[in-house]
Order: sequence, then structure tokens, then C-alpha cells
Amino acid sequence: MVSWFGRRAKRLEIPRLTGRGESLPTMKVDLGELVPPLPQFLGQAAYMELGVFESLAQAATAAPTVTVKGQLSRSAGLALAKHEALVGELRRHGSDPAEAMAPFAAELDAFRRMRAGATWPESLIGCYLTTGLLDDFFAALAVGLPGDTRSRVVKLIEQDAGFAVVVTEVTRAIAVDPKLASSLALWGRRLVGDTLLVARSALHVSGDLSRDESRIEPVFTEIIAAHTRRMDELGLTA
Amino acid sequence: MVSWFGRRAKRLEIPRLTGRGESLPTMKVDLGELVPPLPQFLGQAAYMELGVFESLAQAATAAPTVTVKGQLSRSAGLALAKHEALVGELRRHGSDPAEAMAPFAAELDAFRRMRAGATWPESLIGCYLTTGLLDDFFAALAVGLPGDTRSRVVKLIEQDAGFAVVVTEVTRAIAVDPKLASSLALWGRRLVGDTLLVARSALHVSGDLSRDESRIEPVFTEIIAAHTRRMDELGLTA
Repeated sequence: MVSWFGRRAKRLEIPRLTGRGESLPTMKVDLGELVPPLPQFLGQAAYMELGVFESLAQAATAAPTVTVKGQLSRSAGLALAKHEALVGELRRHGSDPAEAMAPFAAELDAFRRMRAGATWPESLIGCYLTTGLLDDFFAALAVGLPGDTRSRVVKLIEQDAGFAVVVTEVTRAIAVDPKLASSLALWGRRLVGDTLLVARSALHVSGDLSRDESRIEPVFTEIIAAHTRRMDELGLTA
Repeated sequence: MVSWFGRRAKRLEIPRLTGRGESLPTMKVDLGELVPPLPQFLGQAAYMELGVFESLAQAATAAPTVTVKGQLSRSAGLALAKHEALVGELRRHGSDPAEAMAPFAAELDAFRRMRAGATWPESLIGCYLTTGLLDDFFAALAVGLPGDTRSRVVKLIEQDAGFAVVVTEVTRAIAVDPKLASSLALWGRRLVGDTLLVARSALHVSGDLSRDESRIEPVFTEIIAAHTRRMDELGLTA
């Protein structure tokens, strides 16, 4: 068993799945009981999506062709739309969006800079894999939100994020230079740790560590399994 | 008289207006006769708006507060929507958007890097003033487009571009450090030359230089007057 609280930290076991190309299943478990207060949840999720917009816009600027620049810009627009929908939820609940997001800015800005990596393919993978993980995580956590908000928020987090272009471009880059695969696989594995720290920071834990861990573990196992499928889809060994 | 073709080049006279805050009038003159073929016009305008998206997204990433980051991101989203609407026009007319935009990529990418300037206020002003000039210019040129396309394109180019945040932030930066005003004014004036070169490259000239110049001159005079009003609005001496 993995400890998310660092007490019994051991090497993370990442399951290796083989069903390349199969559609990602919806999470079967949820973290509803560990959801933080609504403004905190929405503030963190909204600022996270704003960072996805920034990362994708930056990747668009560095894109090698006009076609790919256009595709990545559209993906950035989808992330911006998610951000704005979450900001709309904050307003609907009487929260000031900037105030709700501000506590998460420093950590998520650093996280955004980290995932940019050193090369364009790394920046693409960095944005895709971390956003996949965090979207899955926030969707699992959103199950604990009250009433109507829950279904609206889960639905908008699960919207298509326009990452098909990333899969296409990374696959193309590896086809051109097969040696890339091992360094990109390493990069994909390295991203997991920092991403789980961001996820961990969003949990509203009860204080009963062993009880919390027993709730968290199956969700994180599923989240890691979905990450592994994304790596697989990119042709990378997880 | 200013020569736009470099034969009788002389110092550009920029009129100094005083009516700060007055709304910018619609262009009274047009360049309709000098409009290039439709795919060329739409390709250049679409790529220009994609560059505005990139510049604003970059300015959002460098924004000093969460509030301003959110505002600049929304402005970037508006530029992206303009880009996508122009791409939609290209598709509607059977053009491949990437193919139509590609001839303008190198020049407009260099132009985007130039206007980023050396500081955050310079990048804000760089994007605002050049986009204002080019939107005015493309709107004047679009008058020569055929039928329905004309009204749709003019309308979408003239859409609010969400630059109010730029005016607010630049004014705030100057209030904090009044010495900024003179260097930013210089920057605002320097931007005009390169921007008019981009505009110039879009004109489908007849070859009769003096006839072309007599059409172009009143339009560029109005475009410069509108630029001067934007400088004025920012508190900068044009």
C-alpha cells in the first residue's frame, strides 16, 4: 500500500496495462468525503485550468507548423473555457474568483513551469499527462460537492480537452527520432510525483490518517492506471 | 504627403489630438479597391489574430496578479475567437486555412516577437497599439470584399477585443512610476513603423503608384489618428 502522507513512503508501483487505444473508463471510485469547501475546490480547479491554457498557448507559440499552432491554440481555448466555467461557478456561489484562486497561484505557477520541460515534446507531454491526472482527480473529488453543482462541475471537468493533437505530435516526433521514446518515457514517469503532490494538497483530510488513506488509495490507483493508459497511447513505457 | 512606397519618404507627421476618452469613430474612408484576393486577405488577418492570442496569453502568464492574469486570458480568448471566425470564413470559401495562413507566418511571428518589447508594460502596449492599428487597417481593407463576406468580416474585426485591461494596467504602472511615461511613449511611437510595414504588405497595389498613394494616404492618416487617440488614452504623448 502506498502512503499518500509520507509516513510509510515506498516506491510507487505503476501498473502496466496493454489495452492501447481503448477509451478511458470513468472513475469507479470517488473521493467525495475528502472534498474541501466549495470555494477552495473551485478556486484550485479554476486556477489549474488557467495554467493549462497558459501551457498550451506557450506550446502553440513554439509549434513547428501553422497547422499545429492552430490546433494547440484551439486546445488552449478549450482549457480557457473550462477555467471560465469554473469561475462562473465561483461567482454563482458568491465567491470572488481572484480571491478563491490566489492561495493556489504560487504552487500551480511553479508546477506549470516544471511541466514545460526542456523540449517541445516534453512540454506537450507535460501538459497532457498532468492535466489528465488532475482532471481525473478533480472529477473524483467533485463527487462530494453539493447538489446541482456536483453534476455541472463533474461534467465540465470531464469535457474533451482537445489533447488529440498532443498524441499525434508526440507519436510523430518519436517516429522521426525513435531514440526520443526512452527519455520521454522517463519524463512521463517523473511528472507523476509532482502531480500527485498537487492533488494531495487539494484533499480535505479528516485527520484519521489510516481511514483517509484507505479512501484515497483506490482512487489514486485508478488515476495512475489512467495515466499509464495515456503513456501507452503515446507509445511510452510507463 | 507621406509616401507609403518609400519613394518620397519623409518624416511621418502624427497628428496630436486632445479629446481623451472619446470613443473611436468608425473609419470614414476605405481601401476596398486595394483588397487582395479573399484567401490572402483572410489568411493574413487570421494569422494576425492568432498572434494577438499568443501575445495576450504570454502577457497573461507574466501578469503580476491573479485578477489581471484572468482578464488578459479572457482577452486572449477573444482574439482566439476572432482567429477562429476568420478560419471559418476561409473554410466557407473552400480554402485550406493552414495553407492560406502559411505565407504570412514568418513575417507575423517576427512582428509578434518585436512587439513583446523588453518589459511587461511594453508587451501590453505593443499588443494593444499594433492590434488597434491592424484591426482598423483590415476593417478598411475588408470593405472591398465581396457580398456577405464583407459585412461578416468587418463586423468580426471590429468586435471588442478586450483591451480595457491594458489601458487600466498601463495607466496604473505609470501612476506608480511616472518616469515610465516617456519611455513608453517612445515605444508607442516606435511600433508604428513596423506595423505600417505589415499593413503595407497586405495591399494589393495596382502598380500605378501615385493613384494607389492617393487612395492609401487618407486611410493611413485616419489610422494614425486613431493610434494617437489610443496613445492619449494611455496617457502617452504620441
